[in-house]
Amino acid sequence: MTMSPLTAVVPERDSAAAVVRFRAVRAATERLAAPLETEDYVVSSMSDVSPAKWHLAHTTWFFETFVLAPHLEGYTPRDPKYAFLFNSYYVQAGERHCRAQRGLVTRPTVREVFAYRAHVDEAMDTLFAQLAHDADHPAWTVIDLGTHHEQQHQELFVTDIKHVFWTNPVHPAYYAVVPGRVNAVPQSWLTVPEGLAEIGFAGSGFHFDNEAPRHRTWLSGARVAHRLVTNGEFAEFVSDGGYRKPALWLSAGFAAAQERAWHAPLYWQRVEDAWVEFTLAGDQPLDPDAPVTHVSFYEADAFARWAGARLPTEAEWEVAARDQPVTGRFADAGLLHPGANAAPGPQQFYGDAWQWTQSAYLPYPGFTAAEGALGEYNGKFMSDQWVLRGASCATPASHARHTYRNFFPSDARWQFSGIRLATDP
Amino acid sequence: MTMSPLTAVVPERDSAAAVVRFRAVRAATERLAAPLETEDYVVSSMSDVSPAKWHLAHTTWFFETFVLAPHLEGYTPRDPKYAFLFNSYYVQAGERHCRAQRGLVTRPTVREVFAYRAHVDEAMDTLFAQLAHDADHPAWTVIDLGTHHEQQHQELFVTDIKHVFWTNPVHPAYYAVVPGRVNAVPQSWLTVPEGLAEIGFAGSGFHFDNEAPRHRTWLSGARVAHRLVTNGEFAEFVSDGGYRKPALWLSAGFAAAQERAWHAPLYWQRVEDAWVEFTLAGDQPLDPDAPVTHVSFYEADAFARWAGARLPTEAEWEVAARDQPVTGRFADAGLLHPGANAAPGPQQFYGDAWQWTQSAYLPYPGFTAAEGALGEYNGKFMSDQWVLRGASCATPASHARHTYRNFFPSDARWQFSGIRLATDP
Amino acid sequence: MTMSPLTAVVPERDSAAAVVRFRAVRAATERLAAPLETEDYVVSSMSDVSPAKWHLAHTTWFFETFVLAPHLEGYTPRDPKYAFLFNSYYVQAGERHCRAQRGLVTRPTVREVFAYRAHVDEAMDTLFAQLAHDADHPAWTVIDLGTHHEQQHQELFVTDIKHVFWTNPVHPAYYAVVPGRVNAVPQSWLTVPEGLAEIGFAGSGFHFDNEAPRHRTWLSGARVAHRLVTNGEFAEFVSDGGYRKPALWLSAGFAAAQERAWHAPLYWQRVEDAWVEFTLAGDQPLDPDAPVTHVSFYEADAFARWAGARLPTEAEWEVAARDQPVTGRFADAGLLHPGANAAPGPQQFYGDAWQWTQSAYLPYPGFTAAEGALGEYNGKFMSDQWVLRGASCATPASHARHTYRNFFPSDARWQFSGIRLATDP
Amino acid sequence: MTMSPLTAVVPERDSAAAVVRFRAVRAATERLAAPLETEDYVVSSMSDVSPAKWHLAHTTWFFETFVLAPHLEGYTPRDPKYAFLFNSYYVQAGERHCRAQRGLVTRPTVREVFAYRAHVDEAMDTLFAQLAHDADHPAWTVIDLGTHHEQQHQELFVTDIKHVFWTNPVHPAYYAVVPGRVNAVPQSWLTVPEGLAEIGFAGSGFHFDNEAPRHRTWLSGARVAHRLVTNGEFAEFVSDGGYRKPALWLSAGFAAAQERAWHAPLYWQRVEDAWVEFTLAGDQPLDPDAPVTHVSFYEADAFARWAGARLPTEAEWEVAARDQPVTGRFADAGLLHPGANAAPGPQQFYGDAWQWTQSAYLPYPGFTAAEGALGEYNGKFMSDQWVLRGASCATPASHARHTYRNFFPSDARWQFSGIRLATDP
Repeated sequence: MTMSPLTAVVPERDSAAAVVRFRAVRAATERLAAPLETEDYVVSSMSDVSPAKWHLAHTTWFFETFVLAPHLEGYTPRDPKYAFLFNSYYVQAGERHCRAQRGLVTRPTVREVFAYRAHVDEAMDTLFAQLAHDADHPAWTVIDLGTHHEQQHQELFVTDIKHVFWTNPVHPAYYAVVPGRVNAVPQSWLTVPEGLAEIGFAGSGFHFDNEAPRHRTWLSGARVAHRLVTNGEFAEFVSDGGYRKPALWLSAGFAAAQERAWHAPLYWQRVEDAWVEFTLAGDQPLDPDAPVTHVSFYEADAFARWAGARLPTEAEWEVAARDQPVTGRFADAGLLHPGANAAPGPQQFYGDAWQWTQSAYLPYPGFTAAEGALGEYNGKFMSDQWVLRGASCATPASHARHTYRNFFPSDARWQFSGIRLATDP
Repeated sequence: MTMSPLTAVVPERDSAAAVVRFRAVRAATERLAAPLETEDYVVSSMSDVSPAKWHLAHTTWFFETFVLAPHLEGYTPRDPKYAFLFNSYYVQAGERHCRAQRGLVTRPTVREVFAYRAHVDEAMDTLFAQLAHDADHPAWTVIDLGTHHEQQHQELFVTDIKHVFWTNPVHPAYYAVVPGRVNAVPQSWLTVPEGLAEIGFAGSGFHFDNEAPRHRTWLSGARVAHRLVTNGEFAEFVSDGGYRKPALWLSAGFAAAQERAWHAPLYWQRVEDAWVEFTLAGDQPLDPDAPVTHVSFYEADAFARWAGARLPTEAEWEVAARDQPVTGRFADAGLLHPGANAAPGPQQFYGDAWQWTQSAYLPYPGFTAAEGALGEYNGKFMSDQWVLRGASCATPASHARHTYRNFFPSDARWQFSGIRLATDP
Repeated sequence: MTMSPLTAVVPERDSAAAVVRFRAVRAATERLAAPLETEDYVVSSMSDVSPAKWHLAHTTWFFETFVLAPHLEGYTPRDPKYAFLFNSYYVQAGERHCRAQRGLVTRPTVREVFAYRAHVDEAMDTLFAQLAHDADHPAWTVIDLGTHHEQQHQELFVTDIKHVFWTNPVHPAYYAVVPGRVNAVPQSWLTVPEGLAEIGFAGSGFHFDNEAPRHRTWLSGARVAHRLVTNGEFAEFVSDGGYRKPALWLSAGFAAAQERAWHAPLYWQRVEDAWVEFTLAGDQPLDPDAPVTHVSFYEADAFARWAGARLPTEAEWEVAARDQPVTGRFADAGLLHPGANAAPGPQQFYGDAWQWTQSAYLPYPGFTAAEGALGEYNGKFMSDQWVLRGASCATPASHARHTYRNFFPSDARWQFSGIRLATDP
Repeated sequence: MTMSPLTAVVPERDSAAAVVRFRAVRAATERLAAPLETEDYVVSSMSDVSPAKWHLAHTTWFFETFVLAPHLEGYTPRDPKYAFLFNSYYVQAGERHCRAQRGLVTRPTVREVFAYRAHVDEAMDTLFAQLAHDADHPAWTVIDLGTHHEQQHQELFVTDIKHVFWTNPVHPAYYAVVPGRVNAVPQSWLTVPEGLAEIGFAGSGFHFDNEAPRHRTWLSGARVAHRLVTNGEFAEFVSDGGYRKPALWLSAGFAAAQERAWHAPLYWQRVEDAWVEFTLAGDQPLDPDAPVTHVSFYEADAFARWAGARLPTEAEWEVAARDQPVTGRFADAGLLHPGANAAPGPQQFYGDAWQWTQSAYLPYPGFTAAEGALGEYNGKFMSDQWVLRGASCATPASHARHTYRNFFPSDARWQFSGIRLATDP
């Protein structure tokens, strides 16, 4: 997902809790960085990937630009060049540095970026002291937004460094913890009934603006799988020649697969008649019961057709998920692997893999862009992408909810994106 | 639209009428070719554009392959190489010739292609005689499909040759008839009420499978413009700097506009402080009251945002259009220009320009692919494109209906694609 | 060779002979065009290739622009747009039409281009009448230049149409005459002695400026092959894995071969364990005794290394050739195939294939650019190319001489370019 | 220059001196690295540029592979993956890691690469002890070659890091020493007489194989400038519109300049009506008396034409230089800036800028490739490049000699490449 943090709608808040949350999120980012060597922070292995250093600095620049500059008297930016280097796409906030060049910028150093983080955190503390008794101050909304923004970048931090390490022929490990294995349960199905339904965010609590407004939609009825497609199931598709049968694919999908020589999910390697998967713990034998991840929409769609099923719509997914507990293998657990579902209970709506839907990423009826600089680009990514629902093993737990709309283009594979099947009733 | 003729569903029929229709469509294709010189038939000016010669041959190959070969005893293909040269994407029907190379094939000559058409038409006559009293013969379905397929190619024939002539610095005219001018009426609005609606094809008559099944959908209510956006209105957007304001654009749209240096619709040229538009009658002064055409989805979307409106969904469009008469400036009139709407009556739903909607091109609920060779690719284009509704001045009249779903990607500009605005209620 | 006709140096002349020569060259061009269909004139199969129509028009535009416009009173150009469409690179002579677009221009038609030729030829007749008794008139120099220029385009006309037909999967034949076969004689060697030599044009008669000035050069001594490398010899290199052995290749050559998947000369196809060669008479079994053609410099260089030899320098070639008769299988014979050398006599210096040398295309010592418009670009192509010597089966006989310097870049393969070996003494 | 160290011819040697030289060169490399931060070692800013880390490792891998592995009993490579990561193009020495990916490899870390260097240096010490009294041992030849190889990489280390820093919008400085300024003396000319000359390496001492064999060549006579073209002189060419006048350029040169929007040498920036040059000390006002550097062959050639001169041939350069002392502003001085020549004496043959010649990089007559693995690629770069002579401010002093042949393609600009003019007599 290209970041769209500027469009959030935030409710009344408890300012002490917001401070706690701010500090927790900032610390979580730095925990994710702990296993890296200085060199790992610098490079970008493809245009979708930003350097780790950039993620650390960009999330900091957000607070500097949208919180400290307007709300902390006397605050001056740490370095005027940072606005240029660490802006992403906020045109109103100043010229941005071309994405393709990000991975070539060796200075400021990693040490300087951490100093930048500390500098901004300190200034935030000063601001927190000033705002302690002013729960209605407009800064709080932006602070809350900034923490959710930073959580989005935490997930990208992980998926990006995975890709960087993959590009290195040596295949370094981010850390050494390998997941245990259990057996997946057989597939079964949840029923989504025909009829009018309401979807979209309702109630209080944080949400991004693309989750609103809550609105009615007509459902034709569907069955939705109660767990994700496994590596073993996807391997059958592969060995059945799935990648070479055009009738299974969207036309653009088959063209993409041919052109890029896809023959398995990203990170799968064929070694002496067995599949090896590159993970954050380095190369590992493929776990057949773990959910398949790192497939594009095109592959998810082709697999579903091969399986005699289809992908769910985002409304079907949301209706199926809304009564399920928000539990799963989240990033907070420090174990960034998708895992098998061993018991009938865990239906893997969250915490293993994002799930492609067959819904294009479009505005909800009545969606309107916010005013002003932070709302400059409301909805600007609502074309040429698909909605993914759920949350992955790289998502912070507090970031998961049943109305969350993630989105990526048809050919994106470097996220922990997997497959939940659906069928007509 | 990439052609998808194989997926039609055709009702019981009157075989004599089908023969009449077949001959009329075949003749109409050749009438469209009449103004061309031999040289004009050969080239392809970009990858979306097929040579005129190819359109003439490909539509003929369709009847040879899917009607004559299976149904006329003793028929042998005119030339075994034609299946290779004039196939488009029907993988099961044999290897196809790479699209990019089509415009480099000088042989068979134009004369030979016309002879091919005559040869196939003659064989079709033989078949018609055999089937005259067998109205249930399965060939009739494919024949009907073939004529609608050929009508789709008639529209492409026109838009493709327009682009070929545009590429020539001399800007040749396809023909000399220039449209008269009248004044557009002021904009007003049709109301689409909130509530459940049914959309999709119902009843008898020909339709493509992507128009089915008819199904319920919930509408949030909207106002839909009663006429198309005019050149004059779009020129205001241009002179207001619309192409240089990122806040008006989808992110991918602004990137496309920058990268390709778009600063006006395709075919507009700035000559001495006035707009000149390249038309099928050559360069002409821009008619401010005629509907704007040759804009991409991105431009349509940006214009709508600039105008404080949005594009309609395809369901809103269909509900607004279904009670309107199917009249307009169709290709059959021999005047391939979009024209101003001079009276309150003509609402330009058909016959001037295809109208971008904000609906992604996706399968209707319950859509299922047909079986067998002709249904090989049902739905294979249902990704990364938008639905356009209506019909343009290059569409044959009998090809227009309110359930028709045309589709093109976000950046396509060489079709007669225009803009109908909508707003929330 | 990119054309460089503007830089010729022409001696005193016999004006009647010049008229005869003009008419003969103009007629020869049209004889070459006779086998083409209208469609064949239009397309360009790659950026090096110009459409046949363009060659016919461009050579005519040359006389219109550089002879008629300045020297025939009252002459006005046939069509002001032609200067734009048919200029090649003469910047001072007006804006030129982008090379990549040439193959998309369907108008003016072929008929109009022939009318343009007739129009200019007629005006030339008028001019000839006026100049009949003015042998010193400066127009004669340019006329002579124009005929040599047109002869260069005759060769390109042939090699370009060959490539166009090759691009067509149907592989049409330009004409039906297939060469007879005889046996090549065994290789033997000519001696080029060590010492000072003079090379470059001397004496009277036409020559291009890159052949001058005649100058001294030191030769280290060499043996130069007395005939060209044959298809059979090159096939041994292929079957020995020559294309897959990096040690045989220049670094850039091996990279080019890999990137473009070269595995044999252009126009060779492997069909059921035998080589078939596409010729101007269509696909033909490879003649093992005919000289190999359509190899790049890189392939010629790799072959020579494989054969334990090297390519000759242009000075070695010229010294070896200068006492040989200028005979061979020239285009004038109407048989555009390279042929085997059956007798000890014909040493194939001319009339079968151009011969790559190991000399970069650089100015001779003391080379100076001519003044004025026609000399605008003297020497502008003297970088990044190699000298080829001799003449091919597509060269007009009167265009062959031992000082002629043809030139192409390292990877050019669509000319009749072959290999003459050399070794140190 | 792509490195070609494997092809050296090394004379009898003094083994103690060789050890001293080895240690000095290894230490010099690390001195060059001293100003870098860890992050600076990792990235590659374009395909010509290798990461600093790679240079450090690759030069070490050379000794490990070609000296230690064959000659030190019991030596095992530090890490088997290094052969893959740090090989450059030595196909026989094992698979190499794609150049384009080099800048994405974050592991091994910089610390590990330095440890690799220390490990190999230590093993080399062991070997030195064994070979101390065996001056004829074949290892000495390769050791000497390896030190010259490493010196070539020292120059690339500097030019590559300059380009990396340039790519960073912040324009970091490699170090802070800014050159003092003095005035250039007026141009004057050295005479190279007509006649037979001998060029190429003769005598004892190290040389690369492309400098041999010494051979005779005929010179037509020339005048060669006694100093380099200055920034001020080149700025006149720029302000005279030199970059926009096609008549001054080779055809391929003007095309390159247009396509890449060249309007001044690499590293020149126009800031408020003055030229600023990016140097290893960061952005600095352009010194008009310092020699122009970072121009391509195309720009050097166009400048020379504008100045009514030409570039010298490599033979002319060598004859002019051979009696001059090998002095200049070498890298060893720790001041990597080209400087003005203030006195009549210093003729800037060495130590300021490499000087483009008009000689293509071709084998000398009688050049033969060495046998075996180290000679695998003799001459493989002898196409599509030009010879540069002299030495730059980034060249180690002991690497400069009048027979040295450096080479780069026509469009290379990231080296310290400058211009020495010549004319016909």
